Amino acid sequence: MEKDKLEQLLNDVAEGKVGTAEALQVLKTLPYDDIGIAKIDKHRELRTGHSEVIFCLNKTPKQVAQIVKKMTEYSKLIIGTKASPAHYEAAREVVPEAKYDEDAGMIIVGEMPEPKSDKVIAIVTAGTADIPVAREAALTAQSYGHKTKEYYDVGVAGIHRLFDKLDEIREANVIIAVAGMEGALASVLGGLVDVPVIAVPTSTGYGSSQGGMAALLAMLNSCALGVSVMNIDNGFGAGYFACKINR
Amino acid sequence: MEKDKLEQLLNDVAEGKVGTAEALQVLKTLPYDDIGIAKIDKHRELRTGHSEVIFCLNKTPKQVAQIVKKMTEYSKLIIGTKASPAHYEAAREVVPEAKYDEDAGMIIVGEMPEPKSDKVIAIVTAGTADIPVAREAALTAQSYGHKTKEYYDVGVAGIHRLFDKLDEIREANVIIAVAGMEGALASVLGGLVDVPVIAVPTSTGYGSSQGGMAALLAMLNSCALGVSVMNIDNGFGAGYFACKINR
Amino acid sequence: MEKDKLEQLLNDVAEGKVGTAEALQVLKTLPYDDIGIAKIDKHRELRTGHSEVIFCLNKTPKQVAQIVKKMTEYSKLIIGTKASPAHYEAAREVVPEAKYDEDAGMIIVGEMPEPKSDKVIAIVTAGTADIPVAREAALTAQSYGHKTKEYYDVGVAGIHRLFDKLDEIREANVIIAVAGMEGALASVLGGLVDVPVIAVPTSTGYGSSQGGMAALLAMLNSCALGVSVMNIDNGFGAGYFACKINR
Amino acid sequence: MEKDKLEQLLNDVAEGKVGTAEALQVLKTLPYDDIGIAKIDKHRELRTGHSEVIFCLNKTPKQVAQIVKKMTEYSKLIIGTKASPAHYEAAREVVPEAKYDEDAGMIIVGEMPEPKSDKVIAIVTAGTADIPVAREAALTAQSYGHKTKEYYDVGVAGIHRLFDKLDEIREANVIIAVAGMEGALASVLGGLVDVPVIAVPTSTGYGSSQGGMAALLAMLNSCALGVSVMNIDNGFGAGYFACKINR
Amino acid sequence: MEKDKLEQLLNDVAEGKVGTAEALQVLKTLPYDDIGIAKIDKHRELRTGHSEVIFCLNKTPKQVAQIVKKMTEYSKLIIGTKASPAHYEAAREVVPEAKYDEDAGMIIVGEMPEPKSDKVIAIVTAGTADIPVAREAALTAQSYGHKTKEYYDVGVAGIHRLFDKLDEIREANVIIAVAGMEGALASVLGGLVDVPVIAVPTSTGYGSSQGGMAALLAMLNSCALGVSVMNIDNGFGAGYFACKINR
Amino acid sequence: MEKDKLEQLLNDVAEGKVGTAEALQVLKTLPYDDIGIAKIDKHRELRTGHSEVIFCLNKTPKQVAQIVKKMTEYSKLIIGTKASPAHYEAAREVVPEAKYDEDAGMIIVGEMPEPKSDKVIAIVTAGTADIPVAREAALTAQSYGHKTKEYYDVGVAGIHRLFDKLDEIREANVIIAVAGMEGALASVLGGLVDVPVIAVPTSTGYGSSQGGMAALLAMLNSCALGVSVMNIDNGFGAGYFACKINR
Amino acid sequence: MEKDKLEQLLNDVAEGKVGTAEALQVLKTLPYDDIGIAKIDKHRELRTGHSEVIFCLNKTPKQVAQIVKKMTEYSKLIIGTKASPAHYEAAREVVPEAKYDEDAGMIIVGEMPEPKSDKVIAIVTAGTADIPVAREAALTAQSYGHKTKEYYDVGVAGIHRLFDKLDEIREANVIIAVAGMEGALASVLGGLVDVPVIAVPTSTGYGSSQGGMAALLAMLNSCALGVSVMNIDNGFGAGYFACKINR
Amino acid sequence: MEKDKLEQLLNDVAEGKVGTAEALQVLKTLPYDDIGIAKIDKHRELRTGHSEVIFCLNKTPKQVAQIVKKMTEYSKLIIGTKASPAHYEAAREVVPEAKYDEDAGMIIVGEMPEPKSDKVIAIVTAGTADIPVAREAALTAQSYGHKTKEYYDVGVAGIHRLFDKLDEIREANVIIAVAGMEGALASVLGGLVDVPVIAVPTSTGYGSSQGGMAALLAMLNSCALGVSVMNIDNGFGAGYFACKINR
Repeated sequence: MEKDKLEQLLNDVAEGKVGTAEALQVLKTLPYDDIGIAKIDKHRELRTGHSEVIFCLNKTPKQVAQIVKKMTEYSKLIIGTKASPAHYEAAREVVPEAKYDEDAGMIIVGEMPEPKSDKVIAIVTAGTADIPVAREAALTAQSYGHKTKEYYDVGVAGIHRLFDKLDEIREANVIIAVAGMEGALASVLGGLVDVPVIAVPTSTGYGSSQGGMAALLAMLNSCALGVSVMNIDNGFGAGYFACKINR
Repeated sequence: MEKDKLEQLLNDVAEGKVGTAEALQVLKTLPYDDIGIAKIDKHRELRTGHSEVIFCLNKTPKQVAQIVKKMTEYSKLIIGTKASPAHYEAAREVVPEAKYDEDAGMIIVGEMPEPKSDKVIAIVTAGTADIPVAREAALTAQSYGHKTKEYYDVGVAGIHRLFDKLDEIREANVIIAVAGMEGALASVLGGLVDVPVIAVPTSTGYGSSQGGMAALLAMLNSCALGVSVMNIDNGFGAGYFACKINR
Repeated sequence: MEKDKLEQLLNDVAEGKVGTAEALQVLKTLPYDDIGIAKIDKHRELRTGHSEVIFCLNKTPKQVAQIVKKMTEYSKLIIGTKASPAHYEAAREVVPEAKYDEDAGMIIVGEMPEPKSDKVIAIVTAGTADIPVAREAALTAQSYGHKTKEYYDVGVAGIHRLFDKLDEIREANVIIAVAGMEGALASVLGGLVDVPVIAVPTSTGYGSSQGGMAALLAMLNSCALGVSVMNIDNGFGAGYFACKINR
Repeated sequence: MEKDKLEQLLNDVAEGKVGTAEALQVLKTLPYDDIGIAKIDKHRELRTGHSEVIFCLNKTPKQVAQIVKKMTEYSKLIIGTKASPAHYEAAREVVPEAKYDEDAGMIIVGEMPEPKSDKVIAIVTAGTADIPVAREAALTAQSYGHKTKEYYDVGVAGIHRLFDKLDEIREANVIIAVAGMEGALASVLGGLVDVPVIAVPTSTGYGSSQGGMAALLAMLNSCALGVSVMNIDNGFGAGYFACKINR
Repeated sequence: MEKDKLEQLLNDVAEGKVGTAEALQVLKTLPYDDIGIAKIDKHRELRTGHSEVIFCLNKTPKQVAQIVKKMTEYSKLIIGTKASPAHYEAAREVVPEAKYDEDAGMIIVGEMPEPKSDKVIAIVTAGTADIPVAREAALTAQSYGHKTKEYYDVGVAGIHRLFDKLDEIREANVIIAVAGMEGALASVLGGLVDVPVIAVPTSTGYGSSQGGMAALLAMLNSCALGVSVMNIDNGFGAGYFACKINR
Repeated sequence: MEKDKLEQLLNDVAEGKVGTAEALQVLKTLPYDDIGIAKIDKHRELRTGHSEVIFCLNKTPKQVAQIVKKMTEYSKLIIGTKASPAHYEAAREVVPEAKYDEDAGMIIVGEMPEPKSDKVIAIVTAGTADIPVAREAALTAQSYGHKTKEYYDVGVAGIHRLFDKLDEIREANVIIAVAGMEGALASVLGGLVDVPVIAVPTSTGYGSSQGGMAALLAMLNSCALGVSVMNIDNGFGAGYFACKINR
Repeated sequence: MEKDKLEQLLNDVAEGKVGTAEALQVLKTLPYDDIGIAKIDKHRELRTGHSEVIFCLNKTPKQVAQIVKKMTEYSKLIIGTKASPAHYEAAREVVPEAKYDEDAGMIIVGEMPEPKSDKVIAIVTAGTADIPVAREAALTAQSYGHKTKEYYDVGVAGIHRLFDKLDEIREANVIIAVAGMEGALASVLGGLVDVPVIAVPTSTGYGSSQGGMAALLAMLNSCALGVSVMNIDNGFGAGYFACKINR
Repeated sequence: MEKDKLEQLLNDVAEGKVGTAEALQVLKTLPYDDIGIAKIDKHRELRTGHSEVIFCLNKTPKQVAQIVKKMTEYSKLIIGTKASPAHYEAAREVVPEAKYDEDAGMIIVGEMPEPKSDKVIAIVTAGTADIPVAREAALTAQSYGHKTKEYYDVGVAGIHRLFDKLDEIREANVIIAVAGMEGALASVLGGLVDVPVIAVPTSTGYGSSQGGMAALLAMLNSCALGVSVMNIDNGFGAGYFACKINR
């Protein structure tokens, strides 16, 4: 891993094994790895112990495979989001140990870390169809060493299901509310808890839901306090943002 | 009132005082009154005992006054909706007994009828700013002889306020849910009651609420069953539709 | 069926066979069945004799099959809407007696009940292409024990077709108007009948119809009274809402 | 008038009073009059006997006045559309005989011509609030020497009002259907008549009517044949287009 | 054909072979043929000698086939628009003489009539990709007995191509301007000709053209006079509307 | 303040001065104060020492004044957001000590608390025109006892201004990025810092900025991680959400 | 002016009057002037001899005045765009020599420079109402030392007006095409000239022009080559971009 | 090639071999080649040495093949953009030497010219997924004889990657900024360089990016100066526009 290499380099400089000029040259190339089609950010790993996440959606399977391959050179854990089976197949061909979480649409290479603390990120979905986005959020948070609990299908159509779990949900340190259709779950949760609620609209729905725009607008206009919003279906972003709060 | 005139006419025909051809001629002119700028529907009163309602918004004060004036000739109760103070002033000049409900923006000429039954139409608002639309719905329903109960400012941001009134609200026969911003109140009510919920989005809000479109889309995509939707700020339509159900 | 089980339980309590504490424990778990991916609402059946309806659209075939399977444990009639053939295939594998209505895109397990009254829900379409949504509404209403009559292809392009059926349509207690393109049928019907009209825009059309948004907006802005609106293609919602009115 | 000047010029050429080269030079400057802020089209008058129409909306009163003033030099009839009272005031200051039609928002200088034929352009509005747009269409058509008949407030909410006038409307050679809200009038008329229907959506309405977009989309998606559409509130365009058909 | 049958019937009544009551009964069933999924309008043929046109887009192949089959009973010429190859295959199975115009996406059964006059409808496209919509318009007009001339790929990007054909185009009695992308062709033509221009936006384009909405809005806001607009890709409607003008 | 009253009540119960039943009755009425037009939430103060915030925008001045007046009975600090001068005037008439922050459009009654910790919330604006929204966020956070630092006019058009302040900004615990137009500041900050970034789009801009929608969409689609989004101009929401994170 | 100060400083360093460290310190503070509400960019002037332009639209008159005042300390020419009369009044109070161009809505302090070359930027408008945006572009370009020629009211509705000026327009080095409504001028020009065309949509129009969105979309989808697009009404941006090309 | 033919013709006229009238006749037919489905513009080649570019997207493979075939008669270099593999296959069948650039989706027949100067067009992408659009721009510019340099994956999420290349990018004469999602790259570059920046939004993204509309709006509202915008994914247009500037 780069972090180790870096420490080694600094030690070498300290011990006079490597000159300042030489070290500088090495350090200059550290921040990213230029593989032509992509500049892989290595700063991130230096700071967080977690390599840059690959957003697969608009990349070709071949591009994803190239990037995964390159990252195995220095990364213990590689995550690819919005990955189709085709992306995964291409990745597995060059990195056979790659795994695929079908629900979340994620490619994972390496082992998930142990949770760094007991503070829980609760991930709550309105319906069954919102689970893929919730899973993306959960796996993302776990990959950064955070503990998650998931509560599925507790939308406001049958609000007793939510109240049944509310005591448990209230114990979380951050809540991710995942909902499509009219996205009312975010507002209702926002009114019931004291911790930050990260609202993720999903593309669940049809007709005037317009691919999740109805839920997105509803969440942005929430009458409840303490709710901020991510892009439609952006489970990864919600998971990452939750980690930033949960530190 | 036309209804009386009509009965008289039919009696006259029955008694031979008026010939068929003559009666036909009278009946032919009955359905509406053509005053050039408007054709005032009188069918409606024949059937319902309630004259056509004047939608003032895009009419000039002068036009509204002309129509009100004409309707006083045969109508016991005249209602004008979305009326500005200027509309009212013009109406009052020609019909001095006209009254104005500032909250609802309604012109009223004549006496409200007694409720025809004990079945209640509950009108529930998410916030204080939704009251004008709720008032429009309430006065409309009352003008058709229905009983209403109003519950203001019980939106989901503080859902305990809603639950506090829920037993009472559940006793209603129809519910009108009035809410702007994200409009979640309609979904939450839809999940909690067994009677039909008529959702009215309001233009309360700012930014991406886009004049009520966020609430409208949310309500159309409600995950709860038994919710149908009216146009933004259409309290009158909701009140009228509730009456049709409440018969 | 749960309702029977519940009665049994209450009888057992009455007869002293089951203690209060024990009964409470059972009752607490009644409201829904948690199968991980979904919390199946059983309250609904207790109240209405009709189990929760499965909205299949954004669920995987596997998820739908799991939920159908679980519901057969206590439900006499199971309905799945917006079901693709793939959903049906998965369901039939675990519940072989499942049937599929191709027109309506509905999975049905169990027998439709006899109509509970003679009050008719009329379902009227503008065109042939609107039939699937109308069928969804009709089957839904029938599954709740309501009588339906369907009138297809009577849109305003050839308004004599509508007038030809008008006397019959006027006998209904509630009307569902299903139309795509410009959706004018809802306004025209609203102006011709005295019962509530539930307008369902459909995605029939192309170009600037924008997947049904043109019809939806038109229906929301109907100049006729007594018209409320459902989401685009939401035949199920319209059927359900009609039942609430038709009680 | 330019037309006369042109004839004179051609006569002069024919009679040898003016040389070809000189005439050419004159003709070259004929097509428009350049007054800096505007290039006034005079071709149009040469062909049609009707000068270019001034669209006032986004011009300053001063600009409108300048253009009107210039046009009086060679035009017998000058028309300004979408004119505010301020536009009119500025115009009247420089051309005192200018008149103003408040309903239509039009400035008129000169006398309207006698109708050139008996073929009628029927202008039909759904409501009272649509009258300004209808008046703009009617005055425009009259200014081009066409006969118009106007039918106001015959929208589909009370469709008997339309049927009552239908025989008369059907005698027209072209029909202009003016309607806001859901704009259903255009479709209904399209299904009932055999002549071309020019649909003009208006900004009458509120909420999701979005300044007339709902009516515009509805009219574009009309299920009836023989309907073409103008921009929202474009009465002038409809009147002009009707004249082109009515020749 | 119905028209013949009708004449026969009337003759029979005149000759006393058929009684009034009996004739009335027959006439009552004439207006349309009810085949369950569709009510086929026969009024139209009585008036125009042209049967109702089948809009195939949102119908199933089976439905289209049923309607075509039924119409062969009394129609000499049957037209189906927006027909996919699958629609055609289904139609041909039941009516083997059905033909398919791949460019226009039209099913045709029967012979096109001879042009009824020499007045030409000019159909002009901006680009090659707009040809399908132009062909739909042309075949439609021809099916109603009108003469068409087509000018392809003369958009404003190379305006000399348009000017090269302008003299010829100006001889037409009506012009249909078919263009996607920014749709400027309609405005430019509108400024150059004196006959009515029917603008048809197409879905040609990508990105912010939004399926033709950019061209549609541009055409609605044309600064040129004498331009009216059809729905995106609505070649059929344009062809039909042109016929109404070209009578 | 209610909190004190509550403690008193509980003490009284403990000391036997008040019976349980009586205490329960009191507690039941505690959660909100019903003044007809509004139900003032008092739960919030019990938990946080901060009374409910009044959102003034869609309320009348009279309503705002009524609510402020009522709240002075038990609240040490009252905040009203999106308040116009008219709102303030009405409030000051009933509560003379009310103050008004013109920049932020906020009514404030009472003293701001001392910061509870040294953790800073940084509030950064792209331009000068974004300051009102930033001020709203800052005052909100201060009213909840948080420390804020503000950095104005450091947008990406002159990115050296941002880099100049970056070291300081990076020391904050949470960052609020306020920007209109294209809203790029949020993405750039998101890529440069490790703490959570709360993005607030503003309505600064014109033309296709569409009242802030351009900035809103840009922020939702940020390529940078760790950015969540509030409604357009929602400085209050951002300030409140920042406090939740900053605990 | 800063540029002079800078030269002085560098000379002082060269002459040993100022030490390197001290100079560095001065240079570090040069890039902008922080006046609290704004950070005035001075880099720009150092490079271009033209100070930062003040965008007045969303600033208060007081803020604009403060910024203008500060800039007079080192700037020979100050430009404020989208300035209302109120902005100008405030500016003039603190800087009495400030002038105001009402057409362009611009505040100007100082003298316009002489053109630096003979290369012309042609600014062409479709109509009279587009002149303000064109003037903004022209004054902007002139303020940067470029020569402009303006051609007004030559839109495609009367395309002979454009052709009449075409030879002259073709001599320009860059063309700015300013048009509202359907914006076809940009496409037509793009097809007729070989130099870059900068398209500026304006908010001229009404109804479905949606504040210039119709023209904007049309220009973005231009079928002509060599056309790039600015925001609606962004004359300043177009003028500036033209200067960058015209160097 | 036409250019040669033209020179020959003019020589022939000069030498008296061909009469003026005859030459005129030939020249009149030169401007385009009419192959029915398309009018191939040959003016362009006469002026620029580069034949018209074929926009393949909405054309059928057969149409593309016909046009390519025709153009080989007189063109040394043929370019087809937005070409699918199917387009290419059809083209290759009639012109076997046709090549296909899969990344850019371009058909190329003939040899790319040598760069005409050393002025560089820099093409910069935010991410890997934006490469296809960048490649389209690069190949287009190269085909017109311009030198390009490409910088991929230097978006603002890791802004150090951009700064790392900035010195090099600043040496370019024109910059094309290609970015999807929030498109912030264009604004950041606009603030850092002095040459014109052509912004190309891409459809990279999901959810509320709405096929690139979020990036498009952001770029149009850029707070940085010197940025103009192309349609979404319009790499070809950007390449062409850059060439016009780079002359």
